Amino acid sequence: MENKIEKYVREIPDFPKPGVLFRDVTGILDTGEGFRLAMIEMESALAGVHVDKIAAPESRGFIFGAALADRLRCAFVPIRKPGKLPCRTISEDYELEYGHATLHMHADAVSPGDRVVVIDDLLATGGTAIAAARLVERLGGQVIKMMFAIELAGFGAREGKLAGYDVFSLVRYPGK
Amino acid sequence: MENKIEKYVREIPDFPKPGVLFRDVTGILDTGEGFRLAMIEMESALAGVHVDKIAAPESRGFIFGAALADRLRCAFVPIRKPGKLPCRTISEDYELEYGHATLHMHADAVSPGDRVVVIDDLLATGGTAIAAARLVERLGGQVIKMMFAIELAGFGAREGKLAGYDVFSLVRYPGK
Repeated sequence: MENKIEKYVREIPDFPKPGVLFRDVTGILDTGEGFRLAMIEMESALAGVHVDKIAAPESRGFIFGAALADRLRCAFVPIRKPGKLPCRTISEDYELEYGHATLHMHADAVSPGDRVVVIDDLLATGGTAIAAARLVERLGGQVIKMMFAIELAGFGAREGKLAGYDVFSLVRYPGK
Repeated sequence: MENKIEKYVREIPDFPKPGVLFRDVTGILDTGEGFRLAMIEMESALAGVHVDKIAAPESRGFIFGAALADRLRCAFVPIRKPGKLPCRTISEDYELEYGHATLHMHADAVSPGDRVVVIDDLLATGGTAIAAARLVERLGGQVIKMMFAIELAGFGAREGKLAGYDVFSLVRYPGK
Protein backbone atom coordinates (compact mmCIF):
# COMPACT_ATOMS: atom_id res chain seq x y z
CA MET A 1 0.00 0.00 0.00
CA GLU A 2 1.41 3.36 -0.94
CA ASN A 3 1.96 5.64 2.02
CA LYS A 4 1.59 9.22 0.85
CA ILE A 5 3.53 10.68 3.76
CA GLU A 6 6.50 8.34 3.36
CA LYS A 7 7.60 10.14 0.19
CA TYR A 8 8.13 13.32 2.21
CA VAL A 9 10.51 11.67 4.69
CA ARG A 10 14.12 12.36 3.77
CA GLU A 11 16.70 9.67 4.35
CA ILE A 12 20.19 10.77 5.38
CA PRO A 13 22.86 8.05 5.55
CA ASP A 14 25.38 8.09 8.41
CA PHE A 15 23.64 10.71 10.56
CA PRO A 16 24.16 11.35 13.44
CA LYS A 17 26.87 8.66 13.21
CA PRO A 18 28.20 6.15 10.62
CA GLY A 19 25.88 3.23 9.89
CA VAL A 20 22.67 5.02 10.91
CA LEU A 21 20.09 5.87 8.24
CA PHE A 22 18.39 8.96 9.65
CA ARG A 23 14.72 9.50 8.76
CA ASP A 24 14.25 13.25 8.66
CA VAL A 25 10.81 14.66 9.45
CA THR A 26 11.76 18.13 8.25
CA GLY A 27 11.01 16.74 4.77
CA ILE A 28 7.36 16.47 5.85
CA LEU A 29 7.39 20.12 6.97
CA ASP A 30 9.18 21.43 3.87
CA THR A 31 6.02 21.78 1.85
CA GLY A 32 2.55 22.87 2.85
CA GLU A 33 1.23 19.64 1.27
CA GLY A 34 3.34 17.24 3.35
CA PHE A 35 2.70 19.00 6.64
CA ARG A 36 -1.06 19.21 5.84
CA LEU A 37 -1.26 15.53 4.98
CA ALA A 38 0.46 14.63 8.26
CA MET A 39 -1.80 16.84 10.36
CA ILE A 40 -4.98 15.66 8.64
CA GLU A 41 -4.04 12.03 9.33
CA MET A 42 -3.20 12.75 12.96
CA GLU A 43 -6.45 14.67 13.44
CA SER A 44 -8.40 11.86 11.74
CA ALA A 45 -6.88 9.29 14.09
CA LEU A 46 -8.57 11.18 16.95
CA ALA A 47 -11.94 11.75 15.25
CA GLY A 48 -14.76 11.48 17.76
CA VAL A 49 -12.31 11.18 20.68
CA HIS A 50 -12.47 13.73 23.50
CA VAL A 51 -8.98 15.13 24.16
CA ASP A 52 -8.23 17.63 26.94
CA LYS A 53 -4.52 18.11 26.33
CA ILE A 54 -1.70 17.30 23.95
CA ALA A 55 1.66 16.71 25.68
CA ALA A 56 4.90 16.68 23.68
CA PRO A 57 8.64 16.55 24.42
CA GLU A 58 10.88 19.22 22.95
CA SER A 59 11.90 20.11 20.33
CA ARG A 60 10.43 18.27 17.33
CA GLY A 61 7.51 16.96 19.36
CA PHE A 62 6.43 20.60 19.74
CA ILE A 63 5.91 20.90 15.97
CA PHE A 64 3.32 18.16 15.55
CA GLY A 65 1.97 18.57 19.08
CA ALA A 66 1.20 22.28 18.92
CA ALA A 67 -0.40 22.04 15.47
CA LEU A 68 -2.55 19.12 16.63
CA ALA A 69 -3.58 20.91 19.84
CA ASP A 70 -4.60 23.91 17.76
CA ARG A 71 -6.64 21.69 15.41
CA LEU A 72 -8.38 19.99 18.35
CA ARG A 73 -8.89 23.31 20.18
CA CYS A 74 -7.28 21.87 23.30
CA ALA A 75 -4.39 22.80 25.58
CA PHE A 76 -0.73 22.08 24.83
CA VAL A 77 1.66 20.79 27.49
CA PRO A 78 5.37 21.25 26.74
CA ILE A 79 7.68 18.57 28.19
CA ARG A 80 11.16 19.98 28.47
CA LYS A 81 14.78 19.39 29.37
CA PRO A 82 15.94 20.40 32.86
CA GLY A 83 16.02 24.12 33.73
CA LYS A 84 13.69 25.27 30.95
CA LEU A 85 10.28 25.42 32.66
CA PRO A 86 9.95 28.32 35.13
CA CYS A 87 7.35 26.95 37.59
CA ARG A 88 7.38 23.90 39.84
CA THR A 89 7.98 20.73 37.83
CA ILE A 90 7.97 16.96 38.18
CA SER A 91 10.62 14.96 36.33
CA GLU A 92 11.37 11.52 34.91
CA ASP A 93 14.73 10.02 34.00
CA TYR A 94 15.01 7.80 30.97
CA GLU A 95 17.71 5.73 29.33
CA LEU A 96 19.59 6.79 26.23
CA GLU A 97 21.89 4.58 24.19
CA TYR A 98 24.74 5.92 26.30
CA GLY A 99 23.79 7.38 29.67
CA HIS A 100 20.46 8.90 30.55
CA ALA A 101 18.40 12.08 30.27
CA THR A 102 15.65 13.80 32.22
CA LEU A 103 12.34 15.33 31.15
CA HIS A 104 10.34 17.89 33.12
CA MET A 105 6.68 18.92 33.09
CA HIS A 106 5.01 21.71 35.03
CA ALA A 107 3.39 20.16 38.10
CA ASP A 108 0.10 21.95 37.34
CA ALA A 109 0.08 21.17 33.60
CA VAL A 110 -2.14 18.10 33.91
CA SER A 111 -5.11 17.63 36.27
CA PRO A 112 -6.57 14.35 37.56
CA GLY A 113 -8.89 12.87 34.93
CA ASP A 114 -7.42 14.82 32.00
CA ARG A 115 -7.49 12.84 28.78
CA VAL A 116 -4.04 13.40 27.27
CA VAL A 117 -2.44 12.48 23.95
CA VAL A 118 1.37 12.10 24.05
CA ILE A 119 2.97 12.99 20.72
CA ASP A 120 6.50 13.04 19.31
CA ASP A 121 8.10 13.08 15.89
CA LEU A 122 9.87 9.73 16.18
CA LEU A 123 9.26 6.43 17.98
CA ALA A 124 12.47 4.41 18.34
CA THR A 125 13.20 2.71 21.69
CA GLY A 126 10.20 4.40 23.31
CA GLY A 127 12.26 5.78 26.20
CA THR A 128 11.18 9.37 25.69
CA ALA A 129 7.54 8.42 25.12
CA ILE A 130 7.26 6.30 28.25
CA ALA A 131 8.90 9.04 30.35
CA ALA A 132 6.36 11.52 28.94
CA ALA A 133 3.48 9.13 29.69
CA ARG A 134 4.68 8.63 33.28
CA LEU A 135 4.76 12.39 33.85
CA VAL A 136 1.14 12.64 32.67
CA GLU A 137 0.05 9.66 34.79
CA ARG A 138 1.82 10.86 37.95
CA LEU A 139 -0.39 13.96 37.79
CA GLY A 140 -3.50 11.80 37.44
CA GLY A 141 -3.91 12.18 33.67
CA GLN A 142 -4.94 9.35 31.36
CA VAL A 143 -2.77 8.74 28.27
CA ILE A 144 -5.46 7.91 25.74
CA LYS A 145 -3.13 7.68 22.74
CA MET A 146 0.52 7.96 21.76
CA MET A 147 1.16 9.43 18.32
CA PHE A 148 4.30 9.64 16.21
CA ALA A 149 5.15 10.86 12.73
CA ILE A 150 7.72 8.08 12.19
CA GLU A 151 7.97 4.66 13.87
CA LEU A 152 11.12 2.54 13.66
CA ALA A 153 9.44 -0.77 14.35
CA GLY A 154 12.71 -2.70 14.64
CA PHE A 155 13.20 -1.35 18.16
CA GLY A 156 10.04 -3.17 19.27
CA ALA A 157 8.72 -0.30 21.39
CA ARG A 158 5.08 -0.87 20.41
CA GLU A 159 5.08 -4.42 21.74
CA GLY A 160 7.62 -3.71 24.50
CA LYS A 161 7.93 -0.47 26.48
CA LEU A 162 4.65 0.92 25.13
CA ALA A 163 2.60 -2.30 25.45
CA GLY A 164 -0.84 -1.44 26.80
CA TYR A 165 -0.89 1.99 25.17
CA ASP A 166 -2.80 2.87 22.02
CA VAL A 167 0.05 3.66 19.59
CA PHE A 168 -0.43 5.43 16.26
CA SER A 169 2.23 6.38 13.70
CA LEU A 170 2.00 8.01 10.28
CA VAL A 171 4.85 6.02 8.72
CA ARG A 172 6.18 2.71 10.03
CA TYR A 173 9.60 1.41 8.98
CA PRO A 174 10.46 -2.22 9.76
CA GLY A 175 14.09 -1.51 10.71
CA LYS A 176 15.95 0.55 13.29
CA MET B 1 -7.36 48.75 26.58
CA GLU B 2 -7.74 45.31 28.05
CA ASN B 3 -5.54 42.73 26.42
CA LYS B 4 -7.26 39.37 26.65
CA ILE B 5 -4.09 37.34 26.13
CA GLU B 6 -2.14 39.17 28.84
CA LYS B 7 -4.16 37.47 31.56
CA TYR B 8 -2.85 34.08 30.42
CA VAL B 9 0.82 35.09 30.76
CA ARG B 10 2.26 33.84 34.04
CA GLU B 11 4.79 36.01 35.86
CA ILE B 12 7.56 34.23 37.75
CA PRO B 13 9.83 36.44 39.89
CA ASP B 14 13.58 35.71 39.96
CA PHE B 15 13.66 33.26 37.04
CA PRO B 16 16.05 32.30 35.55
CA LYS B 17 18.05 34.51 37.95
CA PRO B 18 17.39 36.96 40.83
CA GLY B 19 15.86 40.28 39.78
CA VAL B 20 14.31 39.00 36.53
CA LEU B 21 10.52 38.82 36.22
CA PHE B 22 9.98 35.96 33.77
CA ARG B 23 6.90 36.14 31.52
CA ASP B 24 5.89 32.54 30.91
CA VAL B 25 4.10 31.70 27.67
CA THR B 26 3.17 28.23 28.89
CA GLY B 27 0.30 30.00 30.67
CA ILE B 28 -1.11 30.82 27.22
CA LEU B 29 -0.89 27.15 26.23
CA ASP B 30 -2.35 25.79 29.48
CA THR B 31 -5.93 26.16 28.34
CA GLY B 32 -7.53 25.62 24.98
CA GLU B 33 -8.99 29.14 25.25
CA GLY B 34 -5.67 30.95 25.73
CA PHE B 35 -3.87 29.07 22.96
CA ARG B 36 -6.84 29.58 20.60
CA LEU B 37 -7.00 33.30 21.29
CA ALA B 38 -3.27 33.63 20.57
CA MET B 39 -3.47 31.67 17.33
CA ILE B 40 -6.56 33.52 16.10
CA GLU B 41 -4.83 36.87 16.68
CA MET B 42 -1.67 35.71 14.92
CA GLU B 43 -3.66 34.37 11.97
CA SER B 44 -5.69 37.61 11.81
CA ALA B 45 -2.50 39.68 11.68
CA LEU B 46 -1.70 37.87 8.40
CA ALA B 47 -5.21 38.03 6.89
CA GLY B 48 -5.00 38.59 3.13
CA VAL B 49 -1.21 38.23 3.15
CA HIS B 50 0.40 35.52 1.00
CA VAL B 51 2.84 33.48 3.12
CA ASP B 52 5.00 30.67 1.70
CA LYS B 53 6.75 29.59 4.88
CA ILE B 54 6.86 30.11 8.63
CA ALA B 55 10.37 29.96 10.11
CA ALA B 56 10.88 29.58 13.86
CA PRO B 57 13.81 29.00 16.24
CA GLU B 58 13.62 26.10 18.69
CA SER B 59 12.11 25.26 21.06
CA ARG B 60 9.23 27.57 22.02
CA GLY B 61 9.16 29.20 18.61
CA PHE B 62 8.16 25.79 17.24
CA ILE B 63 4.91 25.88 19.25
CA PHE B 64 3.45 29.07 17.77
CA GLY B 65 5.23 28.61 14.44
CA ALA B 66 3.96 25.12 13.65
CA ALA B 67 0.39 25.91 14.68
CA LEU B 68 0.44 29.06 12.54
CA ALA B 69 1.93 27.22 9.53
CA ASP B 70 -0.82 24.62 9.86
CA ARG B 71 -3.50 27.34 9.99
CA LEU B 72 -2.05 29.08 6.92
CA ARG B 73 -1.55 25.75 5.08
CA CYS B 74 2.07 26.64 4.43
CA ALA B 75 5.47 25.03 5.08
CA PHE B 76 7.30 25.16 8.41
CA VAL B 77 11.05 25.81 8.61
CA PRO B 78 12.71 24.77 11.89
CA ILE B 79 15.72 26.88 12.92
CA ARG B 80 17.87 24.86 15.27
CA LYS B 81 20.92 24.75 17.48
CA PRO B 82 24.14 23.28 16.03
CA GLY B 83 24.20 19.54 15.23
CA LYS B 84 20.42 19.05 15.16
CA LEU B 85 19.56 19.35 11.46
CA PRO B 86 20.72 16.37 9.38
CA CYS B 87 21.20 17.96 5.93
CA ARG B 88 23.46 20.77 4.74
CA THR B 89 22.86 23.94 6.75
CA ILE B 90 23.77 27.60 6.82
CA SER B 91 24.37 29.25 10.19
CA GLU B 92 24.37 32.61 11.95
CA ASP B 93 26.05 33.59 15.20
CA TYR B 94 24.30 35.96 17.55
CA GLU B 95 25.09 37.67 20.82
CA LEU B 96 23.75 36.55 24.18
CA GLU B 97 24.02 38.49 27.42
CA TYR B 98 27.18 36.52 28.11
CA GLY B 99 28.89 34.98 25.10
CA HIS B 100 27.20 33.98 21.87
CA ALA B 101 25.15 31.24 20.24
CA THR B 102 24.61 29.86 16.75
CA LEU B 103 21.45 29.02 14.80
CA HIS B 104 21.26 26.69 11.81
CA MET B 105 18.77 26.32 8.97
CA HIS B 106 18.70 23.71 6.23
CA ALA B 107 20.30 25.28 3.15
CA ASP B 108 17.36 24.15 0.98
CA ALA B 109 14.64 25.21 3.44
CA VAL B 110 14.01 28.60 1.80
CA SER B 111 14.05 29.38 -1.93
CA PRO B 112 14.68 32.74 -3.61
CA GLY B 113 11.50 34.80 -3.56
CA ASP B 114 9.85 32.87 -0.72
CA ARG B 115 7.69 35.09 1.47
CA VAL B 116 8.60 34.07 5.01
CA VAL B 117 7.23 34.96 8.46
CA VAL B 118 9.75 34.66 11.32
CA ILE B 119 8.06 33.78 14.61
CA ASP B 120 9.19 33.24 18.19
CA ASP B 121 7.58 33.21 21.61
CA LEU B 122 9.49 36.18 23.04
CA LEU B 123 11.05 39.36 21.68
CA ALA B 124 13.68 40.76 24.06
CA THR B 125 16.99 42.01 22.60
CA GLY B 126 16.05 40.75 19.14
CA GLY B 127 19.28 38.80 18.73
CA THR B 128 17.59 35.51 17.94
CA ALA B 129 15.06 37.12 15.62
CA ILE B 130 17.63 38.99 13.56
CA ALA B 131 19.78 35.86 13.23
CA ALA B 132 16.69 33.97 12.00
CA ALA B 133 15.87 36.76 9.53
CA ARG B 134 19.43 36.74 8.18
CA LEU B 135 19.26 33.00 7.56
CA VAL B 136 16.07 33.47 5.53
CA GLU B 137 17.51 36.41 3.59
CA ARG B 138 20.82 34.68 2.80
CA LEU B 139 18.78 32.03 0.97
CA GLY B 140 16.94 34.72 -1.00
CA GLY B 141 13.76 34.73 1.07
CA GLN B 142 11.87 37.85 2.03
CA VAL B 143 10.96 38.34 5.72
CA ILE B 144 7.50 39.83 5.36
CA LYS B 145 6.71 39.90 9.09
CA MET B 146 8.20 39.06 12.48
CA MET B 147 5.73 37.78 15.05
CA PHE B 148 6.04 37.21 18.79
CA ALA B 149 3.73 36.15 21.58
CA ILE B 150 5.40 38.49 24.10
CA GLU B 151 7.42 41.65 23.48
CA LEU B 152 9.59 43.22 26.19
CA ALA B 153 9.64 46.70 24.73
CA GLY B 154 12.24 48.00 27.19
CA PHE B 155 14.99 46.30 25.19
CA GLY B 156 14.19 48.55 22.22
CA ALA B 157 14.47 45.77 19.62
CA ARG B 158 11.56 47.05 17.52
CA GLU B 159 13.20 50.44 16.96
CA GLY B 160 16.76 49.06 17.08
CA LYS B 161 17.89 45.68 15.77
CA LEU B 162 14.58 44.98 14.02
CA ALA B 163 14.09 48.48 12.50
CA GLY B 164 12.82 48.11 8.95
CA TYR B 165 10.94 44.88 9.69
CA ASP B 166 7.20 44.61 10.20
CA VAL B 167 7.01 43.55 13.87
CA PHE B 168 3.85 42.16 15.51
CA SER B 169 3.40 40.98 19.09
CA LEU B 170 0.38 39.69 20.99
CA VAL B 171 1.33 41.28 24.33
CA ARG B 172 3.72 44.20 24.75
CA TYR B 173 5.27 44.97 28.13
CA PRO B 174 7.03 48.32 28.58
CA GLY B 175 9.90 46.92 30.69
CA LYS B 176 12.68 44.39 30.26
